[in-house]
Amino acid sequence: MSPVSKTRLLQELHQAVPRQIILDSAEAMRPFECDGLSVYRKLPLLVALPEDTGQVREILKVCNHLGVPVVTRGAGTGLSGGALPIEQGLLLVLTKLNRILHIDPLNRTARVQAGVRNLAISEAVAAHGLYYAPDPSSQIACSIGGNVAENAGGVHCLKYGLTVHNVMEVSMLTIEGEELLLGGAALDSPGYDLLALANGSEGMLGVITEVLVRLLPLPETAQVVLAGFASVDAAAATVSAIIAAGIVPAGLEMMDRLSVEAVEAFNSPGYPRDAEAVLLCELDGGEAEVAEQMARVQKILEAQQATSVSVSTSEADRLRLWQGRKNAFPAVSRIRPDYYCMDGTIPRRELPRVLAQISAASQRYGLPVANVFHAGDGNLHPLILYDANQEGDLDQAEKLGAEILTMCIEAGGTVTGEHGVGMEKLDSMCEQFTAAELKQFHALKEAFDPVGLLNPGKAIPTLHRCAELGAMHVHKGKLPFPDLPRF
Amino acid sequence: MSPVSKTRLLQELHQAVPRQIILDSAEAMRPFECDGLSVYRKLPLLVALPEDTGQVREILKVCNHLGVPVVTRGAGTGLSGGALPIEQGLLLVLTKLNRILHIDPLNRTARVQAGVRNLAISEAVAAHGLYYAPDPSSQIACSIGGNVAENAGGVHCLKYGLTVHNVMEVSMLTIEGEELLLGGAALDSPGYDLLALANGSEGMLGVITEVLVRLLPLPETAQVVLAGFASVDAAAATVSAIIAAGIVPAGLEMMDRLSVEAVEAFNSPGYPRDAEAVLLCELDGGEAEVAEQMARVQKILEAQQATSVSVSTSEADRLRLWQGRKNAFPAVSRIRPDYYCMDGTIPRRELPRVLAQISAASQRYGLPVANVFHAGDGNLHPLILYDANQEGDLDQAEKLGAEILTMCIEAGGTVTGEHGVGMEKLDSMCEQFTAAELKQFHALKEAFDPVGLLNPGKAIPTLHRCAELGAMHVHKGKLPFPDLPRF
Repeated sequence: MSPVSKTRLLQELHQAVPRQIILDSAEAMRPFECDGLSVYRKLPLLVALPEDTGQVREILKVCNHLGVPVVTRGAGTGLSGGALPIEQGLLLVLTKLNRILHIDPLNRTARVQAGVRNLAISEAVAAHGLYYAPDPSSQIACSIGGNVAENAGGVHCLKYGLTVHNVMEVSMLTIEGEELLLGGAALDSPGYDLLALANGSEGMLGVITEVLVRLLPLPETAQVVLAGFASVDAAAATVSAIIAAGIVPAGLEMMDRLSVEAVEAFNSPGYPRDAEAVLLCELDGGEAEVAEQMARVQKILEAQQATSVSVSTSEADRLRLWQGRKNAFPAVSRIRPDYYCMDGTIPRRELPRVLAQISAASQRYGLPVANVFHAGDGNLHPLILYDANQEGDLDQAEKLGAEILTMCIEAGGTVTGEHGVGMEKLDSMCEQFTAAELKQFHALKEAFDPVGLLNPGKAIPTLHRCAELGAMHVHKGKLPFPDLPRF
Repeated sequence: MSPVSKTRLLQELHQAVPRQIILDSAEAMRPFECDGLSVYRKLPLLVALPEDTGQVREILKVCNHLGVPVVTRGAGTGLSGGALPIEQGLLLVLTKLNRILHIDPLNRTARVQAGVRNLAISEAVAAHGLYYAPDPSSQIACSIGGNVAENAGGVHCLKYGLTVHNVMEVSMLTIEGEELLLGGAALDSPGYDLLALANGSEGMLGVITEVLVRLLPLPETAQVVLAGFASVDAAAATVSAIIAAGIVPAGLEMMDRLSVEAVEAFNSPGYPRDAEAVLLCELDGGEAEVAEQMARVQKILEAQQATSVSVSTSEADRLRLWQGRKNAFPAVSRIRPDYYCMDGTIPRRELPRVLAQISAASQRYGLPVANVFHAGDGNLHPLILYDANQEGDLDQAEKLGAEILTMCIEAGGTVTGEHGVGMEKLDSMCEQFTAAELKQFHALKEAFDPVGLLNPGKAIPTLHRCAELGAMHVHKGKLPFPDLPRF
């Protein structure tokens, strides 16, 4: 099908939906030219800002009829370019679908429109002593629809799971404008698990319009401990020891020396500057439970020779201890003006080895890498620091990033923990999956979107692209050094 | 394609795999003619008992080449007829794939072949202080591959989740014999969530050959409380109150008067005979945590006017209190020789209303219904008691069963909690899903199995079948009595 003219598309849209929800000037569309991965920018043919599900359906019907690609966007905080517009396509922005439709405190659920902000849910249900657990760093801005599309995580996902574990039902419109209700209020739903499929589908299968989220009771209490270590290995061993003891912290975060230096220079949260790595371990629950577990964690810290230990003594103190971690991303900008945030995941036991590999690669490339990450679930966020104004720096940062993702795959991990594949990690997907697996992904996409109008070119690389890269598939979990001791 | 002759199939299989793994006489195949839903019986063309994944692949290649349908079977304990053979098809029995391949105590995972029994996993890892949490009643016999295919639950799934929440990676062979690795050792995996899709796919998408399961540390302690109530409503209100208090019991089970009478007659576990309903609430975790939560549960029981309360004082005592619940199914056979076990799920708040509806329908049909179920997650197991030797009794039992499932759908629930759809609930699926949703299911099946050779005719009804039943779709959650008070 040859590309449809902007005039033709505009004409049909104006007949189907109110004129003011369509933006067509470059000026009006400019704010939507990129998402959180701002190195990629593109203006779409048109931007639509529907105000209800009916308008979304009408827009999809027009696009489907004319064969116009549709890229769906929530708040645009995504970090992998999943919401990057397509020149010949429509950008469907769902931020105006921002109504909380129903709160059911007894069943502990809330039904919300896709554009509702993550944090707005917790704020709306706080009066009932409830909250929505997944808390990506962008939670003040990111939308629940985007959270589902990326299967977002956050600091608390070690204990409370990813988005997929906290969502019960999703209303999705197909490209034909048909509504599918995926999942349901019950623990399990018959038929294939389309609900899980929607989570992490990156706008490729349908347009998410409503979400029924599971709410949790606010924990009675929460306490955090900050511990410093003389080596990254000692901190990583402590992560394993805590988990092995059967403790499931609400959060278990690690930062390396470079990140600590950056946050201390930024807002002095009082982190130990002499430590090679620090751990933040938060426990939540009933008073007795938290006290018991904190005592056990402190014993483990002692046994693992932590060089410093501070336990929060009040809620204000707890928030202070989190300050450093929460500001780590902006803080590293003091070292170099730009950073490239990676998002690989590895089995916990591989932490020391992979961190050592990253450190070696960082020296080889001459680019500092600050590590700030969800240690408990092995989700690394190496921040590659560079200066976009330095010729070739970005290119080098991207190459180093790709190398880090290869390390993650070789260690039995994956190329994305919570940020999605988007535009960014298409090539790494060629390494992670076999041709048969990629073929299966494409067949599945086709079962939802036969013509391929939804977010084309994202998330799953074509076999052609992978072939051009060469036979790059790395067998999952193949360890380059199988004889190294594990711990 | 016209059906392939048994001779032709046998010939090709004998060339591909050892002769002794193929059964072809009616006598040898007889034990495989049904699964746990024994009212349906059929002999397949042939039975194959492969001993390794290579043989499974060869068998699939032959069947795919000849266009022979394949029904995969684990231990055959399924309750919905999902492993019922097809006359013109091959029955692929995976019980000989029974090796535990690798135990990783540090990452708390085990890699096992599909035919490994559920309980055998926990036994094998017990020495490391670990166990595999999902515990369907059939756990002594049922296989992990079947657990994945049915997304099995059990008493502990309220706290520890269904099979899908406890499985990290699945190796699946497509009908073409290609291997797909679904999921991975990391918390999340990029690409569409094929792992979740495999869970509950009822043998329709591929053949599961290996599973990487998540293990949990054995809880330090566990304690159970048994409480009697003067009404089903009071017991149901107590379930809601416990959950509303933010307590997540390891198990929260309910039995009605008829079930209590049956188990007391069977093995006298000491349940209160004067109660209209009893609750069993188990708490597990650290000593302090369990003590604190048990005190809170006891306060709730008091506030909800429980007529009797017994708390286990030792491990032996705890097991005694569970005796009644665990033997409820065999025990009800004393009332009538046969029972038909239903498996609907409803939102917790609907328990009193739906139980009252079931009771009214039971009287209308003149068939007793004993209720024994996972109250915490709203998963009902009404046991319809009948006598197969009474002309028309089974027919009436099936009609009553279908009515009960309709009640579940109308209450916003589903037609199956943990037993799957199989042969049994095809018609109820027509009520639960719209034509668009069923069409999507079929498209998805086709993306894996284009010719439709894997377990044809199960799990998802054809649109034709639904049309013949009439326009039966009940909008999810449409309440027939929207004005009744909820609690």
